[in-house]
Amino acid sequence: MLNGWLITFEGPEGGGKSTQVQRLAAYLRSMNLPCTLLREPGGTPIGDRIRQILLDPTLREMTQRTEILLYAASRAQLVEERILPALKRGDVVLCDRFVDSSLVYQGYAPEWDLDEVKAINRIATGGLRPHRTYLLDLPVDESERRLKKRGKLADRIEQKGQGYHERVREGFLRLAAADPQRYVVVDATDSEDRVFERIRADLAAFLGIEEKEVDR
Amino acid sequence: MLNGWLITFEGPEGGGKSTQVQRLAAYLRSMNLPCTLLREPGGTPIGDRIRQILLDPTLREMTQRTEILLYAASRAQLVEERILPALKRGDVVLCDRFVDSSLVYQGYAPEWDLDEVKAINRIATGGLRPHRTYLLDLPVDESERRLKKRGKLADRIEQKGQGYHERVREGFLRLAAADPQRYVVVDATDSEDRVFERIRADLAAFLGIEEKEVDR
Repeated sequence: MLNGWLITFEGPEGGGKSTQVQRLAAYLRSMNLPCTLLREPGGTPIGDRIRQILLDPTLREMTQRTEILLYAASRAQLVEERILPALKRGDVVLCDRFVDSSLVYQGYAPEWDLDEVKAINRIATGGLRPHRTYLLDLPVDESERRLKKRGKLADRIEQKGQGYHERVREGFLRLAAADPQRYVVVDATDSEDRVFERIRADLAAFLGIEEKEVDR
Repeated sequence: MLNGWLITFEGPEGGGKSTQVQRLAAYLRSMNLPCTLLREPGGTPIGDRIRQILLDPTLREMTQRTEILLYAASRAQLVEERILPALKRGDVVLCDRFVDSSLVYQGYAPEWDLDEVKAINRIATGGLRPHRTYLLDLPVDESERRLKKRGKLADRIEQKGQGYHERVREGFLRLAAADPQRYVVVDATDSEDRVFERIRADLAAFLGIEEKEVDR
């Protein structure tokens, strides 16, 4: 029996996913809700070794299928070693990227066969799906501006050009539009505090958290 | 257009696959046939990095699906980076293990869903199949005796016990029985020279090599 909740965060680089995941975890803990924070690719010792291969800028010969399979391998390990045990304990699992990132970055954006990416990921996850997903949406220009400001070195994924990144944004928006019950699209150009409040309020309602401030 | 031939070598550890592959390559070159030698997992810089993860005995938490996906990722890279270009050049590609090793070691032997292993590998290889496969068949006891003699350190795959290794042997024999047009079962308890002569003669006939000694 899975008593917990799997909450995922998706969207382009620079949208503030990891910051929001940290703040939400602090909030959930303040409400006495146990939570588990994870990120992809990685999140396990084996996944971190796979992550090193995926993000190594010297490994430029990587084929599309190899990339899809390596992300799926890291994900399979994360699901079984971390996510399923946490869900069984009843945790709220906050995951920075999940299957939808593969559908977008390995399928939609490079115009690869989406069914292939879906089939591999269905197997990798054993069919596990998030209960709720927050898309931190950001225009490509703004995403690039933020990454430059951070002085972030370009990894292999970040070297792919404007058209690719436009398709990334569009891909996420399409996934959100196709699954409005699960997806919440958040304007990540808003201030960090407003983005947090938007997600926090939605998540509190979704999880049925009774908030004392509201009760007064 | 693929003008070459993909020849794979399968079977349990200790059957002498790598030795036979070396000898066959020398033979083919002596007949002026270009050939490419490959081994799995690995055979490319990316595949070798994946191989390190797969064979690391400290990474014991690896899930079955992660293992299947990592072998497939290494294979996808090998197919596109090495095998397809070699086949396009018209080479005879000699590959030490291929898809059938995954079907046996990740599917049949651990009693995992074979269809899952097949589906992932069909995608990883783009449907590429070997033209001929030599199964170097060996009883489990003899395989273990040879490995001990070599003083080979046990890697994760070799720690799995007698029952697993019996299923490995049986799995390969079943694959061979199901595809007799492609498979040649060779008794690997024979001397190295006899095993070589058996494979060499079959491969020469299969490739239509005219042998001067025979013509005299």
